[in-house]
Amino acid sequence: MKIAIIGHGVVGSGVVEVILKNQKLINERVGQDIDIKYILDIKEFPDSPLSDRFIKDFSIIENDPEVKIVVETAGGATFAYDYVKRALKAGKSVCTSNKELVARYGYELFEIAKEKNVNLFFEASVGGGIPIIRPLYQCLAANDIIDICGILNGTTNFILTKMIKENMDFQKALSLAQKNGYAEQDPTADVEGIDACRKISILASLAFGKYFDPEKVYTKGITKITLKDVEYAEKYNSVIKLIARTKKYPDGKVSAAVSPCFVSNENQLSNVEGVFNGVLLNGNAVGECMFYGSGAGKLPTASAVVADVIDAAIHPTHIKNLFYTKSEEDFILPYEETSEKFFIRMKTSDLSQAEKVCGDIFSNFEKIDINEKDEFAIVTEEINIKDFDNYINKLNEYNFIEVITYISVL
Amino acid sequence: MKIAIIGHGVVGSGVVEVILKNQKLINERVGQDIDIKYILDIKEFPDSPLSDRFIKDFSIIENDPEVKIVVETAGGATFAYDYVKRALKAGKSVCTSNKELVARYGYELFEIAKEKNVNLFFEASVGGGIPIIRPLYQCLAANDIIDICGILNGTTNFILTKMIKENMDFQKALSLAQKNGYAEQDPTADVEGIDACRKISILASLAFGKYFDPEKVYTKGITKITLKDVEYAEKYNSVIKLIARTKKYPDGKVSAAVSPCFVSNENQLSNVEGVFNGVLLNGNAVGECMFYGSGAGKLPTASAVVADVIDAAIHPTHIKNLFYTKSEEDFILPYEETSEKFFIRMKTSDLSQAEKVCGDIFSNFEKIDINEKDEFAIVTEEINIKDFDNYINKLNEYNFIEVITYISVL
Repeated sequence: MKIAIIGHGVVGSGVVEVILKNQKLINERVGQDIDIKYILDIKEFPDSPLSDRFIKDFSIIENDPEVKIVVETAGGATFAYDYVKRALKAGKSVCTSNKELVARYGYELFEIAKEKNVNLFFEASVGGGIPIIRPLYQCLAANDIIDICGILNGTTNFILTKMIKENMDFQKALSLAQKNGYAEQDPTADVEGIDACRKISILASLAFGKYFDPEKVYTKGITKITLKDVEYAEKYNSVIKLIARTKKYPDGKVSAAVSPCFVSNENQLSNVEGVFNGVLLNGNAVGECMFYGSGAGKLPTASAVVADVIDAAIHPTHIKNLFYTKSEEDFILPYEETSEKFFIRMKTSDLSQAEKVCGDIFSNFEKIDINEKDEFAIVTEEINIKDFDNYINKLNEYNFIEVITYISVL
Repeated sequence: MKIAIIGHGVVGSGVVEVILKNQKLINERVGQDIDIKYILDIKEFPDSPLSDRFIKDFSIIENDPEVKIVVETAGGATFAYDYVKRALKAGKSVCTSNKELVARYGYELFEIAKEKNVNLFFEASVGGGIPIIRPLYQCLAANDIIDICGILNGTTNFILTKMIKENMDFQKALSLAQKNGYAEQDPTADVEGIDACRKISILASLAFGKYFDPEKVYTKGITKITLKDVEYAEKYNSVIKLIARTKKYPDGKVSAAVSPCFVSNENQLSNVEGVFNGVLLNGNAVGECMFYGSGAGKLPTASAVVADVIDAAIHPTHIKNLFYTKSEEDFILPYEETSEKFFIRMKTSDLSQAEKVCGDIFSNFEKIDINEKDEFAIVTEEINIKDFDNYINKLNEYNFIEVITYISVL
């Protein structure tokens, strides 16, 4: 079984490493030998044990009928999109770790895969090495999924863990993440929640069977989280985590959001630390279940990609239940129409007056006191997001109150 | 697609409930209608919505070529074994929740399934509703599995959680578990670790590809755990859990054991509480990952069984990589030849002499002090199990020392 790998970066080289390292075992499980015939990369890798397999022209792969499986680990949604489409059209199964590609063009690529009777697998696109795509569409197939809630980005979870455990501020924690190779030089996609947004859009699409456009996921990053917020969370028996979530309502509508949240220490997700990821699912039969593991990194991500390769080798024809369509129906409930509890922190020169004002504005709230002389902080009842700005404006109308920040409470 | 269900107890009736409840969604996912043609049970169920489907004679199912899938939820390894074998021989796929059957006869039943080009699925046999069988043989197929460590029995975890959180003694917690329907009137299989033993033998067989006889799993239950032990564990920043574990050594040998263990609060498994289960896996590519959820119960277990039914309906022919054989090779490392750290608690009239004695016997140990006047307790270094009795005997030789108990430390 000949395969080709597009991209020899962190994940691509990890795929080569895992295939070579566990060759005997993998070949046994597949029932035939997996052979890497080509590796496509613009750079040269003379020190690679497979240095003779490198090529620069995708059409060699496209036109080689011996290549049955194409692994795409290049990332991005420009030439990766072109290559994956051409590979599928040439009748090859594709295994990709590219969440941007799947989140944006998954439904279109599925159509081609279906038409050509091949597979598009993407286990590594969400949760790195953690098995989550197959468990969702296979093992939980008997369930109506009610909600999914996850820590899907290792970089931000590393940063937040440093802030929580070591009292390190955001900038220092980010620099450390960059130094350790957990964050890129331009950390925008991670710290602004874009990466988590793509991943939750894939999970929502798969769980509910309809393409959930990542553009329609409300997305807020962690750049404004301070150590003071972390302290308030601790006082509330919680930790701050970047939570990606999606929910199905009784009328069939679906919402999705990414934002930092207070997560109770009672919640399993509160124990997911460092670069680890965790996904908590709720199904109407299984109840609550969680998947936990390395959400990124060379070998964990490669582990998921190679699992896809093994599956593609064993099942060369299209697996019809791994699928979602672009729905014409307006099934997305905008974030503004959902409700959440909020932590609100305000500067005030008069603590008791601020408390009185909150009593007038909210029918119910809990006070969080960390002995700040000039701050008043509360956790509200559930508030409709579209009314939320009104509440903030009402608070700010008082000249002795200035809202500093607010954070969702899971 | 006609199916038959053997047994209408907790799980069997749950399977009916899930299929009826999520009928539309399940039929969509399968691409055809799943219809329960027969339910086999010795009792009558006149109030069931499917009361007209009940039969008492298995040969009706066996001889009906319309029935393509047989669900076995009866339990035990006597007539369930007979029926499953006959169903497979009649060319029907089987989905079972029966861990006793799979642990004892899995390899033999796989052979028949292979020969008849049908499937034997058993997702529900380990971890109830938690996806674990498919993740292990599919999603982690690129990995050499190094070890698996799990809380696989909800009943004992409920009892231990009550002991830890509410200071309830073993007998009271067991009675409460029975009252809540979490433990049977005869709780032996749960509290003595037999249920967990069957489950870890299934996971070990699957992870390492060779049948691991449950008789060869060292098994110790939780009946002797006291509140004092729980207090010592707490002092050691740990909790006591019934841990089922299996490990592969560099020479390819495999060990498996079930026993109560001190589990550090840093370990993800320490947070698995009540009737929940958790399975922690280590693969040479993915690193550590964990699966968590409802390990038992009507609907969670049915969720896993119905997922198997869906998979069997979509893939009517034999899936060749879900398989293990009965190996002639002597690959099992007996528990006596493994090493563990131990918590040892001893009664003594002389604390400082006891400490001196421990210093002479063990090259390294940690003292745990909960201010008991006449007790000395330690956690040892790793000790070869075959030498362990010698250590205990050496301690007991001193007339001022009497070993009260010992517990493995994970």
